[in-house]
Amino acid sequence: MALHETESEVARAMLYAVQGGKGLRAFLVIESARLFGIARTHAAPAAAAIEALHSYSLVHDDLPCMDDDDLRRGKPTVHRQWDETVAVLAGDALQALAFELVLQTVCPAEQRILLGRSLADAAGVRGMVGGQMRDIAAESRGAPLSLDEITALQAGKTGALISWSAAAGAVMAGEDQVALRRYGDCLGLAFQIADDVLDVEGDAAAVGKAVGKDAGRGKATFVSHLGLDGAKRRASDLVAEACDALSVYGEKAETLRQAARFVISRRN
Amino acid sequence: MALHETESEVARAMLYAVQGGKGLRAFLVIESARLFGIARTHAAPAAAAIEALHSYSLVHDDLPCMDDDDLRRGKPTVHRQWDETVAVLAGDALQALAFELVLQTVCPAEQRILLGRSLADAAGVRGMVGGQMRDIAAESRGAPLSLDEITALQAGKTGALISWSAAAGAVMAGEDQVALRRYGDCLGLAFQIADDVLDVEGDAAAVGKAVGKDAGRGKATFVSHLGLDGAKRRASDLVAEACDALSVYGEKAETLRQAARFVISRRN
Repeated sequence: MALHETESEVARAMLYAVQGGKGLRAFLVIESARLFGIARTHAAPAAAAIEALHSYSLVHDDLPCMDDDDLRRGKPTVHRQWDETVAVLAGDALQALAFELVLQTVCPAEQRILLGRSLADAAGVRGMVGGQMRDIAAESRGAPLSLDEITALQAGKTGALISWSAAAGAVMAGEDQVALRRYGDCLGLAFQIADDVLDVEGDAAAVGKAVGKDAGRGKATFVSHLGLDGAKRRASDLVAEACDALSVYGEKAETLRQAARFVISRRN
Repeated sequence: MALHETESEVARAMLYAVQGGKGLRAFLVIESARLFGIARTHAAPAAAAIEALHSYSLVHDDLPCMDDDDLRRGKPTVHRQWDETVAVLAGDALQALAFELVLQTVCPAEQRILLGRSLADAAGVRGMVGGQMRDIAAESRGAPLSLDEITALQAGKTGALISWSAAAGAVMAGEDQVALRRYGDCLGLAFQIADDVLDVEGDAAAVGKAVGKDAGRGKATFVSHLGLDGAKRRASDLVAEACDALSVYGEKAETLRQAARFVISRRN
């Protein structure tokens, strides 16, 4: 490959990595913005930003030195399709792109800054990266995690970005975030429990990534602690709590409530 | 190690990675801000941001799947001191921290957004990551790079962040960036030529990283193209051009001129 083509090779890997996702986080951004009368086109850069950030985290999490996964979103992971070098760089560039995008959200400048700062916080060592580090440390630790430890870990690893997405509309509008944060926190946890359930009950072709990995590794999950039925009940309770948190927005929030219900019924 | 300590382990690796650098980029931010009467304390978050971003790039560049280096800033690289997992995550978290910091710069909100957006651009696939990808692709290519190719590669790999640092004061002030960008571009290139010279003439203990690597790899550099004296002359010409670009700022820019001269006289 000619040298001037190598940059576009990373760009191709970036595009590959963002394609095929459910777009849940982007959807949450658009819908939470709609609650405050913010147009889809105005919120779209923030929605694209969170998908870029989420995709970067998947590319890096799949690396051999992390979770070492071969399949993601029904396709070979980036380091399998290309190599580790391209995967590290594509992830790095996707994170930079996320911040470039979020700062193009159409809202007052002060709110745009808050959006960017809260995204950096959610992505960093107190958020997503911290959760990922705990997850990997747990694998090499002898004793399985307690339920509280799993909950705290997931609040960072998957919860921080979902919670940010749910609150994004309130941040853009300069309004109170409390209700949407509670919705997002409950939804994020329900989402992770559903993921643990899918790892047991799901089919790799439908899920788009390897399943049965947790049990194979003897990893403590919501299912290993609560049982399949207990985990499903807990997820269902969390979804009810998430929907309840949106009562202040009345009928306008119905799509967000439907999304919460979808999260625990999904098959991928 | 207990699970709750693992996040602080990444935080320790982040701190380790940022310590021991020359702080050239932070210095450029502070000094370019001073040209516009911006206080050191107001520019400090942007200065810290660029050091965090630069440090993240070093941690990832040193990874086995990248340049595979053992020594950096006179210490073992992060993946040698810890492991690859911690190195990937510490780098990722340092990039998020950089954006959190840059958005805390004390200047009008619109300028703060421009500062953040231009930093994301400099860090991304059109800037630093693109340059790094070209560099790695060059190693696996049969034919050595032409001088133009090396120049283009370095404009991304090291030039983008140095140029951003030099222009930061103008961005904060909402003033024209042209002169400072020219200064930064010349300085960045001179800096890289000096690095190539140090790789030939330097001593690993003083330089703080491995030397003699380029020749060992048969890698085309400014020195292999221009010879030692030719490379030094070119760096010196670039420094003169950098200083010349600052004439519009008169005596106020003398510290920035001294910094440019230092860059080609440094021993590390």
